[in-house]
Amino acid sequence: MDYQAVLEEVAAFARPLVRHGRVADYIPALERVSADRFGMAVADIHGAVYGVGDWEVPFSVQSISKTFSLALVMAQSPGSHGEDGIWKRVGREPSGTPFNSLVQLEAENGIPRNPFINAGALVVTDRLQTLTGDASTSMLHFLREESGNPDLAFDQVVADSEAGHGDRNAALAHFMASFGNLENPVPSVIEHYFWQCSIEMSCRDLAVAGGFLARHGLRADGSRLLEAREAKRINAVMLTCGTYDAAGEFAYRVGLPAKSGVGGGIIAVIPGRCTLCVWSPGLDARGNSVAGAAALDHFTTLTGWSVF
Amino acid sequence: MDYQAVLEEVAAFARPLVRHGRVADYIPALERVSADRFGMAVADIHGAVYGVGDWEVPFSVQSISKTFSLALVMAQSPGSHGEDGIWKRVGREPSGTPFNSLVQLEAENGIPRNPFINAGALVVTDRLQTLTGDASTSMLHFLREESGNPDLAFDQVVADSEAGHGDRNAALAHFMASFGNLENPVPSVIEHYFWQCSIEMSCRDLAVAGGFLARHGLRADGSRLLEAREAKRINAVMLTCGTYDAAGEFAYRVGLPAKSGVGGGIIAVIPGRCTLCVWSPGLDARGNSVAGAAALDHFTTLTGWSVF
Amino acid sequence: MDYQAVLEEVAAFARPLVRHGRVADYIPALERVSADRFGMAVADIHGAVYGVGDWEVPFSVQSISKTFSLALVMAQSPGSHGEDGIWKRVGREPSGTPFNSLVQLEAENGIPRNPFINAGALVVTDRLQTLTGDASTSMLHFLREESGNPDLAFDQVVADSEAGHGDRNAALAHFMASFGNLENPVPSVIEHYFWQCSIEMSCRDLAVAGGFLARHGLRADGSRLLEAREAKRINAVMLTCGTYDAAGEFAYRVGLPAKSGVGGGIIAVIPGRCTLCVWSPGLDARGNSVAGAAALDHFTTLTGWSVF
Amino acid sequence: MDYQAVLEEVAAFARPLVRHGRVADYIPALERVSADRFGMAVADIHGAVYGVGDWEVPFSVQSISKTFSLALVMAQSPGSHGEDGIWKRVGREPSGTPFNSLVQLEAENGIPRNPFINAGALVVTDRLQTLTGDASTSMLHFLREESGNPDLAFDQVVADSEAGHGDRNAALAHFMASFGNLENPVPSVIEHYFWQCSIEMSCRDLAVAGGFLARHGLRADGSRLLEAREAKRINAVMLTCGTYDAAGEFAYRVGLPAKSGVGGGIIAVIPGRCTLCVWSPGLDARGNSVAGAAALDHFTTLTGWSVF
Repeated sequence: MDYQAVLEEVAAFARPLVRHGRVADYIPALERVSADRFGMAVADIHGAVYGVGDWEVPFSVQSISKTFSLALVMAQSPGSHGEDGIWKRVGREPSGTPFNSLVQLEAENGIPRNPFINAGALVVTDRLQTLTGDASTSMLHFLREESGNPDLAFDQVVADSEAGHGDRNAALAHFMASFGNLENPVPSVIEHYFWQCSIEMSCRDLAVAGGFLARHGLRADGSRLLEAREAKRINAVMLTCGTYDAAGEFAYRVGLPAKSGVGGGIIAVIPGRCTLCVWSPGLDARGNSVAGAAALDHFTTLTGWSVF
Repeated sequence: MDYQAVLEEVAAFARPLVRHGRVADYIPALERVSADRFGMAVADIHGAVYGVGDWEVPFSVQSISKTFSLALVMAQSPGSHGEDGIWKRVGREPSGTPFNSLVQLEAENGIPRNPFINAGALVVTDRLQTLTGDASTSMLHFLREESGNPDLAFDQVVADSEAGHGDRNAALAHFMASFGNLENPVPSVIEHYFWQCSIEMSCRDLAVAGGFLARHGLRADGSRLLEAREAKRINAVMLTCGTYDAAGEFAYRVGLPAKSGVGGGIIAVIPGRCTLCVWSPGLDARGNSVAGAAALDHFTTLTGWSVF
Repeated sequence: MDYQAVLEEVAAFARPLVRHGRVADYIPALERVSADRFGMAVADIHGAVYGVGDWEVPFSVQSISKTFSLALVMAQSPGSHGEDGIWKRVGREPSGTPFNSLVQLEAENGIPRNPFINAGALVVTDRLQTLTGDASTSMLHFLREESGNPDLAFDQVVADSEAGHGDRNAALAHFMASFGNLENPVPSVIEHYFWQCSIEMSCRDLAVAGGFLARHGLRADGSRLLEAREAKRINAVMLTCGTYDAAGEFAYRVGLPAKSGVGGGIIAVIPGRCTLCVWSPGLDARGNSVAGAAALDHFTTLTGWSVF
Repeated sequence: MDYQAVLEEVAAFARPLVRHGRVADYIPALERVSADRFGMAVADIHGAVYGVGDWEVPFSVQSISKTFSLALVMAQSPGSHGEDGIWKRVGREPSGTPFNSLVQLEAENGIPRNPFINAGALVVTDRLQTLTGDASTSMLHFLREESGNPDLAFDQVVADSEAGHGDRNAALAHFMASFGNLENPVPSVIEHYFWQCSIEMSCRDLAVAGGFLARHGLRADGSRLLEAREAKRINAVMLTCGTYDAAGEFAYRVGLPAKSGVGGGIIAVIPGRCTLCVWSPGLDARGNSVAGAAALDHFTTLTGWSVF
């Protein structure tokens, strides 16, 4: 497969959609990003990386961080893939409702539907905080190592901006705390959650850092982060829950495990082959990058590499 | 009407139900109250007061305070009974769901259904805080004056205990703040709300202090707190929304405007005649005093004084 | 009280609102009614009747019939005001959601919230069918007798038109049947329900026929239809549930037990004094007559006769 | 891959779970099935078939028929995989709620979440009826041809039994009709739906008949039923929506596109390799075969063939 040629063709296909949709504006720090951006990278399982457009420009990972916090919690809790550990506190079902909904949380006694809606990610962050003592720093260190980019950093302006507009997440966290589903104080959990979301990474960084998902759990250095079955399971959760309440549509169109963020990034996995990351800030009504989703759709059409 | 005789008969009827239901135990400070208590008082519109049982024993007013905070906000916002003021920020419809539900709040964009569910009371407290600069103290002063009991006070143990178990209310407040429906900082609103709920009053105190509801808005000293139509409207909201999600059942059985609290107290109004207060700590599944509701039911049966 | 003078003043007040709102158009037969109509009648408990405007023009009673079917079921089931009989199969709480919602019905296992939402009225009709063998005819006969108008009749065009657009009610009925909450075949229950709704009556007819609600259960001929406590209880259900999901607002503004219909009629009760009926076809967003609600509001303002 | 050896090992693993769960008892005809049954078959893309246990015993396909009705509608509407045709009338998102829920249908204006919940399947059947003039017979003929078993037939006892307990489905159908989302009369749609569900097939029959899903749209005779992208898309919908509200859990544990039925059958697809069918009547709380799900889980563990 000539990845570079495919990426060029995908980029040509997706470029007309750049500026479609709407740049996230719920916090000022995200709103400043230019809508014109488009980048895409592929990291194959052998370590080669390919890119097109703004693939080396850092952006706010936002909810893509949820994939890594889940992986880190699972990595630190070997054998907990059953009914123990994190899965007692968060489910694995698609939410069927918008990503920060309180309705289901209430109906289901403070147990979030899955780790990729905000409520579920707060639980995962809470667990990572308990396991590591510093959830956001441990994630940053992991991402630096895995991406090979020692310059990765939190964006303090974004983190502060999130905190200043964080009433919805504070409501979710207090609500789960009222059901006894948080181990750490609400302000601490929220703070670490916002720091994780604020990390700036490029498509290159994310595709490389997410390589373990395509390598059935092996890290960049060949050591094992997760058992193969656990890496597969993260992919399964990404496919069914990774793109907010558009997961069914995304599986139908793209057919790959993927996780999106309101910064406009999406990572996707072709198990056994490669990890992709695409970025374009314009979002559709469900919070997924318009040009990014189209690019992934076209990539699977050109390569025939959907999981189905 | 020989109130004292009626009260004795009502008490004899209701006493077998004392200890039925369950004393509120969500905070330790309420749990300590003896389940054996039963008291009832009637204050007629001319100033006479009658009582039976533990009618002079103070208890935690809890949600009964919601009636007074609403009255104080309406009194300070004359002419705001239309679409202005507080009624832009809180509705007047029965909630149809448990009293601290987040579901409806989400579906209705942060506007609580009515001022007697927790979310609505937080909005009213927030407004009272803006109008007075000290929501809880202004209510305490009003209740002291209106009840003629200068010893009324906050119960700090209860207020602290509520704050220590306040995640659900914090979730409600942050959630409304995320919709822009709070004027003051969340911690301040919650603190004043808990102080209001912690006030200790007896059946006597409450029946007397609520006299303005039976006197079409006139205070104990004859001055006007509310226009007659506004006093009637508070009674209307009490009847349709005052007993959590049992308001329909309460109207059916008792037929009086009433407001209950998880401390086991219920105040009820017979417009133009008298205000009643009954207290017994055992609660039914919906949070209303079992013996208290039965006593009010029997009172209206004996007197024929339902509003219907 | 000079009822005639009050009615004239109320009519002058309400007339500018006639044509406001929207005439029900979900079936062609209702859509044909002129939006210009306005009539109002008062029947006092002694048999005197007063009217203004189109008070003698027949219109489609629609949901106002729900009041009479409930009264007839309660009249035929003496002593069933407790947990027996009809109240095992339908609740007494406001619905908090639009009048033909399936959501609550599902959450509450096929038990409708109250007898004045469509689902609840279907259960009441089903019960009346079991008790009488002919629910719609028994109601028609009762209304003829009680109104003193032997010419009352079903409107076959309306009934057929309802049946032709009856999928929503068929869904409700089948859904309750799936929970075992219907005694008769779905098509039979729906047919009788539509016939009841199709009865044509004037404001005069309805105010007179509803006199028993103001007379604490006594019929026009002085015989007892209902125990006083049961008549009061129907009034209570009307106040908390009688105007769809605007019952709280209606209680707040008007302060009377009332039942509205999408034909534009509203009956209201002032216990111990009189029964009113107002009619004007333009409906607000919640299905209540705009000019009719304003007229009742003004009537209680002029007379001071809210129940609060 | 030695399929037969794998099947034997899977059967040995799953047999202890046979009789776990509960045989569907909502209709008498299903209740009669012995809980002891267990069978499993694999049909590879080259036409070879392997089986173990009761793999040649016919059972009621029930909801597995939904996969075939969707495929037939898509096959008859080439090019309609976009926003046209069936996808205007039914969504592609997991439901997040039990399979026959009315709640979401109401919130989303009569558009079912996906074609594999009952409401969605009624819409698909309605479309198939319009396209073919006889939805159930056209499916039966397709299944006979594709399975190579000319003896496949409807089970009239099951179809009649479903019809006799069909109030829930009648409610769904009338409800969608009230939103204008049915083209044919409700009774006709329901009848064809029940006939489709009543077809009796063995694991062998189903694995063979579902071969086109593993062959990217090619039928048993090599002719094309569906474009490759459309076959992939049916697999995607199966993975995200095929096992009621346990789809996320199923993807996590098994990692294959699958569709289950309350008869205890489950078909699953390994794209490019084979189609599986497993059967054991005991169901878990969400309606999926207990031993069947465990068998598929073990199959993917032994072969490493999850799509992730």
